[in-house]
Amino acid sequence: MDRASAEKIYGENEQRFIKEWKEFLALKSVSTEPLYDQDCRKCAEWLVAHLSSIGFSAELLETPSKPTVYAFRKGVSGHPRVLYYGHYDVQPVEPLAGWSSEPFGPVLRDGRLYARGAMDNKGQTFYVLKALEQLIKHNELKSDVGILIEGEEECGSKGFMAGLPTWKDKIKADVLMVCDTGTLARGVPAITMGLRAIGHITVKLGGIHKDLHSGVHGGMIKNPATELCRLIATLHKPDGSVAVKNFYDGVQDIDPDDRILANRLPVTTEQYTAMVGVPPLGGEQSYTPLERRGFRPCIDVNGIHSGYDGPGVKTIIPSFAIAKISTRLVAGQVPQRCVELIQEHLRQHAPQGLELTVEGHGSPGKALALSSKSEVVKNARQILKAVSGHDPLFLWEGASIPVVSVLAEMTGAQPLLVGFGLEEDNMHAPNESFSLEQFKDGFLYASMMLSSF
Amino acid sequence: MDRASAEKIYGENEQRFIKEWKEFLALKSVSTEPLYDQDCRKCAEWLVAHLSSIGFSAELLETPSKPTVYAFRKGVSGHPRVLYYGHYDVQPVEPLAGWSSEPFGPVLRDGRLYARGAMDNKGQTFYVLKALEQLIKHNELKSDVGILIEGEEECGSKGFMAGLPTWKDKIKADVLMVCDTGTLARGVPAITMGLRAIGHITVKLGGIHKDLHSGVHGGMIKNPATELCRLIATLHKPDGSVAVKNFYDGVQDIDPDDRILANRLPVTTEQYTAMVGVPPLGGEQSYTPLERRGFRPCIDVNGIHSGYDGPGVKTIIPSFAIAKISTRLVAGQVPQRCVELIQEHLRQHAPQGLELTVEGHGSPGKALALSSKSEVVKNARQILKAVSGHDPLFLWEGASIPVVSVLAEMTGAQPLLVGFGLEEDNMHAPNESFSLEQFKDGFLYASMMLSSF
Repeated sequence: MDRASAEKIYGENEQRFIKEWKEFLALKSVSTEPLYDQDCRKCAEWLVAHLSSIGFSAELLETPSKPTVYAFRKGVSGHPRVLYYGHYDVQPVEPLAGWSSEPFGPVLRDGRLYARGAMDNKGQTFYVLKALEQLIKHNELKSDVGILIEGEEECGSKGFMAGLPTWKDKIKADVLMVCDTGTLARGVPAITMGLRAIGHITVKLGGIHKDLHSGVHGGMIKNPATELCRLIATLHKPDGSVAVKNFYDGVQDIDPDDRILANRLPVTTEQYTAMVGVPPLGGEQSYTPLERRGFRPCIDVNGIHSGYDGPGVKTIIPSFAIAKISTRLVAGQVPQRCVELIQEHLRQHAPQGLELTVEGHGSPGKALALSSKSEVVKNARQILKAVSGHDPLFLWEGASIPVVSVLAEMTGAQPLLVGFGLEEDNMHAPNESFSLEQFKDGFLYASMMLSSF
Repeated sequence: MDRASAEKIYGENEQRFIKEWKEFLALKSVSTEPLYDQDCRKCAEWLVAHLSSIGFSAELLETPSKPTVYAFRKGVSGHPRVLYYGHYDVQPVEPLAGWSSEPFGPVLRDGRLYARGAMDNKGQTFYVLKALEQLIKHNELKSDVGILIEGEEECGSKGFMAGLPTWKDKIKADVLMVCDTGTLARGVPAITMGLRAIGHITVKLGGIHKDLHSGVHGGMIKNPATELCRLIATLHKPDGSVAVKNFYDGVQDIDPDDRILANRLPVTTEQYTAMVGVPPLGGEQSYTPLERRGFRPCIDVNGIHSGYDGPGVKTIIPSFAIAKISTRLVAGQVPQRCVELIQEHLRQHAPQGLELTVEGHGSPGKALALSSKSEVVKNARQILKAVSGHDPLFLWEGASIPVVSVLAEMTGAQPLLVGFGLEEDNMHAPNESFSLEQFKDGFLYASMMLSSF
């Protein structure tokens, strides 16, 4: 389907789309609060009915917790199979005082629809569903299309993850389409090209019965706080790179084209510094900040605590010191192995004379890294250019969406992450909303993309 | 006065001594609690009356807070002038449930007198006063003797310190006698040969507006927690010595005789490890643990805090990290200068890209270090041998008593720190007590020592 047709169809159907979208948003599918368990199920049932009505065979897949919505429509043979992943659950609405209208009473104001989930992820899922509806109606959907909409993305996807291995046949796909990301400016689309994986390590030095008088014992025993600092200091080299042996095994050089695209983002060092408070001077100095975030792994201390924390002074040697550490990992690295390498490093560099405890775990999914040379990405780039008139941004993100990584790994599908969310949408906050402009761009993109396979 | 005479006198007067000591202990001179302000003053007035009754000219020296008791008795010219320093204030009595008898209702049980202050410092001060009373009575006190008993030792000596400069003439002395220390075993006396000085430094790395998502920003900016660890790690060399430039300036080599005496303490590595939980493997490895505590300066982290401290994980880059650091200093080091050297080191090693805040202050008094070759110490050693039948222990302590250091510096007097306190006395805790045996040894020591000048 070309842009002009999709735009014409959108114009003819916009009022109905909004009406149905509001029905979807009125369903109180807050996943973290047991109070809303029945509302979540109603929302899933509403989706099953809606998907059936537009031409899918739809069902609820039960999990140990919230049900997942599954739908499938057979296409013409010889076309790639697409799996769309989204979530129908939403964040809690608190603090209620921050809302200008009811979180579950969707209201259109100044070209924006206000409600919890307006963007994340009901709004973005709904423009995909409406695109599918219209493609089916106009006989332009050739691919097999599977749809998987889970109900616990906002609280860890536990039931969904538990169910996945039993749904292997249903979820097989060539392309994994996700519309749960965003872009940096209105009208400028973006392709999310990378997500890092994550690992967690907790390290503790102790063994001392109780806090000790620092005069009586200072200089006699090893100080757990001092020693934990020294141990953590061994994790990095002076140049900011990670000093853990074999940590970088498997990490690929950055493709020159991807490097150019990654550095093209319209964020200057000055803007970043003003936003965050300090300049982007961390990490490996042989890479730009955007390269470090997008293509390089790192280790961060998320918390370190030991000893006295009150006003004035307290002259103690703390009985123990503890740090929580996380590592962000990139394509080519196996999270669990990297966590084990870091644990081994900590054990080998630990001081004699104190007790060391180390524990940790790697995320289930590996990092995602797309290439701008892949056919699907090249295709999406052309379509987004046609939708907006702009070459899209290419975002190699530093954060992690474990469920997407797991789905990509399990299905072997090529991930395609394009979303139209913006900072102004107040995702997870009061007054969440989504502009009709971005919703329409999403519809145009989804229509053109899904009909291209 | 010889041991036999002192012992005979003690035997004849013990019952009266105990009666008067109980009167002293019944006065509720808790200095930290304003509720007891009038009781503190009554206690000071009781001392003035008591000192007057035994032959001193005594008075209250007013300070900005609690009054100090001052007394003086002229001796025979040609003898050294002695200043005795003690304190009449006591620690709070809480928790009351821990006491077997009233904290201010002194009771003699099984050869021990139970009451708050029984040892610290009313008991130890009282055997000195009784020795002076008897020396005067028997015409054996030849020295000029000044007495300074303050009322705020347990809460920082603020008023006393403020008053000191105005009392310069009253407090001049050749020997500064203090009986506010202890020993390690019943019947085995000890001379406290050294006290370390102290300095405090607070160091903070920040500048980030708020905690940041460690995925989005990890690898882009410097992590304050990681960087504070790296900064603290620069304070020590791999061999455990302090890496701060010029830090050891002025520190003397250990006198071979003192080294032997210091290492003679009856505490094995195994005993220490069992008591504390970890072996004494900290500090400079070229010195024994007791040498490190007694003769070597050190730097300790008393607390470090940054970021997440709850259960599970939180993937943040903390907006700031803060550490409280103290340094124990030895003879030859100027506390304020050492604190400045550490601050300068922290500034020079601080990472670019974060905001550093450093503040600190050195203790007013320098460290004390006595030599076993000094005449006063040799004299005390002989007397303690006569009192107990044991060569005394020589304790180079690692802790600090700033007021003693300040008094020694201000008067230029040779400090003489001998005390008979024991772990079993429950100093600062419920059921504080002092055995009559140790009280008697104190009386014998004070009688023989004070008459020897």
